[in-house]
Amino acid sequence: MSGPRTAAPAVVTGGAGAIGSVLVRALLARGSEVRVLDNLSSGRRSHLAGLADDGRWRLVETDLRKDARPAEFAGAEEVWHLAANPDIRLGTADPRTDLEHGTLATFHVLEAARRADVKRVLFSSSSVVYGYPTVFPTPEEYGPLLPQSLYGASKLAGEALLSAYAHCYGIRAFIFRFANIIGPTMTHGVIYDFFEKVRRDPSRLEVLGDGRQSKSYLWVDDCVSAMLRADDAAHDLVNVFNLGTRDRVSVREIAERVVAATGGRARIEFTGGERGWAGDVPQQLLAIDRIEGLGWKPTWDSRAAVDKTIATFAASGPGAPG
Amino acid sequence: MSGPRTAAPAVVTGGAGAIGSVLVRALLARGSEVRVLDNLSSGRRSHLAGLADDGRWRLVETDLRKDARPAEFAGAEEVWHLAANPDIRLGTADPRTDLEHGTLATFHVLEAARRADVKRVLFSSSSVVYGYPTVFPTPEEYGPLLPQSLYGASKLAGEALLSAYAHCYGIRAFIFRFANIIGPTMTHGVIYDFFEKVRRDPSRLEVLGDGRQSKSYLWVDDCVSAMLRADDAAHDLVNVFNLGTRDRVSVREIAERVVAATGGRARIEFTGGERGWAGDVPQQLLAIDRIEGLGWKPTWDSRAAVDKTIATFAASGPGAPG
Repeated sequence: MSGPRTAAPAVVTGGAGAIGSVLVRALLARGSEVRVLDNLSSGRRSHLAGLADDGRWRLVETDLRKDARPAEFAGAEEVWHLAANPDIRLGTADPRTDLEHGTLATFHVLEAARRADVKRVLFSSSSVVYGYPTVFPTPEEYGPLLPQSLYGASKLAGEALLSAYAHCYGIRAFIFRFANIIGPTMTHGVIYDFFEKVRRDPSRLEVLGDGRQSKSYLWVDDCVSAMLRADDAAHDLVNVFNLGTRDRVSVREIAERVVAATGGRARIEFTGGERGWAGDVPQQLLAIDRIEGLGWKPTWDSRAAVDKTIATFAASGPGAPG
Repeated sequence: MSGPRTAAPAVVTGGAGAIGSVLVRALLARGSEVRVLDNLSSGRRSHLAGLADDGRWRLVETDLRKDARPAEFAGAEEVWHLAANPDIRLGTADPRTDLEHGTLATFHVLEAARRADVKRVLFSSSSVVYGYPTVFPTPEEYGPLLPQSLYGASKLAGEALLSAYAHCYGIRAFIFRFANIIGPTMTHGVIYDFFEKVRRDPSRLEVLGDGRQSKSYLWVDDCVSAMLRADDAAHDLVNVFNLGTRDRVSVREIAERVVAATGGRARIEFTGGERGWAGDVPQQLLAIDRIEGLGWKPTWDSRAAVDKTIATFAASGPGAPG
């Protein structure tokens, strides 16, 4: 982890979200001023509840599809761009969602950063840029990059924009390709969905696909500590890091654990097929040697992260304020 | 080359451009109806002069930044999306150029194709998606893809969108990563620029960079025959092909040949530096085994293509109607 800095103001888009809010707390602990931009569609004010009202942070409601509030970028040293449509499946129903909340938002953030002479932009990309990879664990150099979803397309478009801005304008770029990030404040994703389904109908749990989809899950605090480590220790013009764990967990196993944690009455029913939905990537395991080479390691492996999330949801309901 | 087809209507965006107009002629020769969408910013009506007015093709002036003329897509079997900002350097001066004429235009074309139930979309991408590769010749599987220009970012964003549309909606995608495509009707690029410079000042030719940039040049008719071959013979859901030659030519050599072809009076002056401009990729050589595996070969290597282009420009001026 990084030591304290003196007044290094940071902008965090999506800073009221499940990952962003953990990052905001860590940046404040590091000594930074933080300006949170969030449209509060999936982010929540409650995620930032309890933070001292000491003038070192503020939340500005912002629709990044149109503009990125340039005034908030003045004097910022770095911009963390985490805002996005968090629901991959939504993109297939309305292709404009990821274009606007992904690609266009990223462009507006980069333009605001460039005009404000910001030195570093750090971007939450995703393992889905690898499409349907044939190499596991998948390294950062893997190609071709052929995403299967419009969400993935918007993440790859965002990476490409960061790379171009780095080379054209000298803004240092950090691209973090996330495994599934989980934690107590998630408001989407497979564990959240399973809890919601069992709450609605305690007799059955429908699982999209054959249950053999198998992926890595990274605990949200580990994700944030990895990004801060890279921010401190990586010095290339464009820095690409996979963030995940060395193990993975099947969807069937997650379903069984959720059923056990909710009373054990629900019957698990698989819809069948290799993929849960159009654009789903059934197998995911990222090579994390590069980020581990900077001295970071995940505190929790995927199985532990899944168990911790399930335990929290079982105790206080999914998506409860952390 | 493909045999004649019966009435397979095709949409060609950028069909009045230097490459698009050659493609339009080839599609008509193949037996297709052709609907050309072009904003006529770098495309020219004269590029399509002399085509029989037999009702099998039409040109519709279209600004793809806003919309893609859905009516023109009705009944089309395939869409060739070649429209783009052709000037890579322009993107650094105004980052919105490639976002709008590249990424947004591609999105609008794909949306129109999806709504019209078009079966295939074929897209002119570029070798610049490879960024600054470390492997030569560079294969289609090369990664990471970190473009150096906003033009390159828009091409990678376009590829990502094609891949997502293929997987989400079943539209077959063809991605062609072009080397430098040259021919008598080019209105931009290094040879065109050199002729224009010598015309303005016959005493000197300023070369951006140190002249050691070395790239492949593919004759425009070879480029079109390769795309038609892939359209006929490639059957994956997403088909990615490098299009180039097996040799390359240095910028210094091109400058010397242009000077010789224009009277030999101009003194060549290098501005210095490895790159010609921010975003320039100094070394480029593509692996073309995949497209050659379909039975295509370039008729002309890079040196011959450069010589043919210089000879045409010397005889009738750069960018003259073909």
